[in-house]
Amino acid sequence: MTVQVIVLNGGSSSGKSGIVRCLQAVLPGTWLALGVDAFVDALPAKMRGSDEGITFAADGGVSVGAEFRALDAAWAQGVAAMARAGARIVVDDVFLGGPASQRRWRDALDGLRVLWVGVRCDEAVAAGREIARGDRVPGTAAAQAHAVHEGVVYDLEVDTTRTESLVCARAVAAHVG
Amino acid sequence: MTVQVIVLNGGSSSGKSGIVRCLQAVLPGTWLALGVDAFVDALPAKMRGSDEGITFAADGGVSVGAEFRALDAAWAQGVAAMARAGARIVVDDVFLGGPASQRRWRDALDGLRVLWVGVRCDEAVAAGREIARGDRVPGTAAAQAHAVHEGVVYDLEVDTTRTESLVCARAVAAHVG
Amino acid sequence: MTVQVIVLNGGSSSGKSGIVRCLQAVLPGTWLALGVDAFVDALPAKMRGSDEGITFAADGGVSVGAEFRALDAAWAQGVAAMARAGARIVVDDVFLGGPASQRRWRDALDGLRVLWVGVRCDEAVAAGREIARGDRVPGTAAAQAHAVHEGVVYDLEVDTTRTESLVCARAVAAHVG
Amino acid sequence: MTVQVIVLNGGSSSGKSGIVRCLQAVLPGTWLALGVDAFVDALPAKMRGSDEGITFAADGGVSVGAEFRALDAAWAQGVAAMARAGARIVVDDVFLGGPASQRRWRDALDGLRVLWVGVRCDEAVAAGREIARGDRVPGTAAAQAHAVHEGVVYDLEVDTTRTESLVCARAVAAHVG
Repeated sequence: MTVQVIVLNGGSSSGKSGIVRCLQAVLPGTWLALGVDAFVDALPAKMRGSDEGITFAADGGVSVGAEFRALDAAWAQGVAAMARAGARIVVDDVFLGGPASQRRWRDALDGLRVLWVGVRCDEAVAAGREIARGDRVPGTAAAQAHAVHEGVVYDLEVDTTRTESLVCARAVAAHVG
Repeated sequence: MTVQVIVLNGGSSSGKSGIVRCLQAVLPGTWLALGVDAFVDALPAKMRGSDEGITFAADGGVSVGAEFRALDAAWAQGVAAMARAGARIVVDDVFLGGPASQRRWRDALDGLRVLWVGVRCDEAVAAGREIARGDRVPGTAAAQAHAVHEGVVYDLEVDTTRTESLVCARAVAAHVG
Repeated sequence: MTVQVIVLNGGSSSGKSGIVRCLQAVLPGTWLALGVDAFVDALPAKMRGSDEGITFAADGGVSVGAEFRALDAAWAQGVAAMARAGARIVVDDVFLGGPASQRRWRDALDGLRVLWVGVRCDEAVAAGREIARGDRVPGTAAAQAHAVHEGVVYDLEVDTTRTESLVCARAVAAHVG
Repeated sequence: MTVQVIVLNGGSSSGKSGIVRCLQAVLPGTWLALGVDAFVDALPAKMRGSDEGITFAADGGVSVGAEFRALDAAWAQGVAAMARAGARIVVDDVFLGGPASQRRWRDALDGLRVLWVGVRCDEAVAAGREIARGDRVPGTAAAQAHAVHEGVVYDLEVDTTRTESLVCARAVAAHVG
């Protein structure tokens, strides 16, 4: 049974989006990319910066409220339904809740063949790439670099510190078979 | 029973996105916006400009291939699943297939309470707004202005030709109950 | 002597950018668009939200610091030099300083043939369009709608409240000669 | 006499923009970023894809017409005038014309203290990053990787193949004095 959903988890500026686009290029067939950024874009403007929604503190901390979590759960159900309807999907997420975040995805994706991928990046390197992007709150990369991986279980881990996105994507693709 | 999904259908540059953002601002509660642009963004880069995917002709014509249609059907299943999981959703789409496009959404959203909204705009006005946006293939607005509405059935129609997005959104919101 | 620089002044969400893109489409020849957004994009990320740079208050107020003003003056000198080197240019700006802002541009553009255009929009309509854009601090449009025009002198005024961008652009183009 | 303008030259996807944003973060004072992308954004939509403007061939080749070149020369004059008016500026460009492109900038920046920086990246690595970006014509990075450096003279070269943007930026900053 072949992989139906690839879930990438990693901190901000760890290089997830680049790997996702490379996966879409190198994997056979057509894969949809539905990451946390797509979910946040779907939220009303009023939810950004709201206690019920998602807030970005000046020190790089990210907090989400009850309404955000409820919608995020519905989002995961929807992504699972797309996969059950035949679409192959690459999800990239930031497991702010660590194993609880993984469990939520695992429950939603029940019955589907999932490949769990950890995307690591040295904290200082991720912080530098955050500066190079210029559109993120400084400190977010450092705050998330380790925390999002604690207690999470992967089929495969890649590290973008010294490995290009395309090379990481090929390593992931080799497990999709 | 209250509305769970609002589906807006209208041609390119008819003003759908502005109405969606206003709906997210004026409707009580939190509504997710999941339009055709979000779907196209989720596709691999290689699908844009490909026969299997979506192509934009120099005269404003838009064509989609078999692979695009299969994924679009899975997308609609996923949006429906999100609504069944409790998220309220605003979809904006361009019914290139007219009533067949509506039927596909109707089937996917089976059992959900849907509000069908037609977004009209005078062809010449939409063509002018297309120029003002500066990032669309000239001619797309004119090519779609009437065609996407043929044979489609609505609960409500709004016309952005002389009515602001916010006013149109309030008219839609009044039907959400 | 034909117009070399068109300066549009108007509040946030008054419709300046749409008119600029239409002017680029309808004017004979090639016109560069160099508005205040291009200037802000050229600033370091650290200047956004800094007292020395530009800050956006929660009530829609916009403040700029000394460093912002010094760089803005250099920017205007550069735009003038481009025009003197033969480029035709459309500038769109928000005269937060009213007549002082106009004087600064007038001094920089000394010797060039300039068309001064006021872009008006009813305050409530601009506030509605701000919601429809979804990416602006609510209240900015209302705060600026009248203030930016006080004491400013124009060759021509357009009003986007009930007139499309393309029609406004044609009215401006008729004065370019 | 301290550096007033930094000119970075490198092929598409060689990492220029990341270095520019890091330079804006690490250099003392405020530097404006005015690269070729800002110039292209200022052009009318009708110039993209036009023989007079700029065209992107399917094989990654980029061609510019006479009108593009004339405006680009005026742009360089304007950037120079900004620097003479006191703004410090980081330019990033793609010297499609090699030494002729450098000469044009050298002439425009006459009398200013300029730091010339070559941004190198291994051709295969740049091609991989082009895929990871997802919004560029495949082949552009490879086509430009070597060609844009032929016959160009630098004060300093950096290579992003195995060196992060921030580290490259610090190397450049050490020459700004």
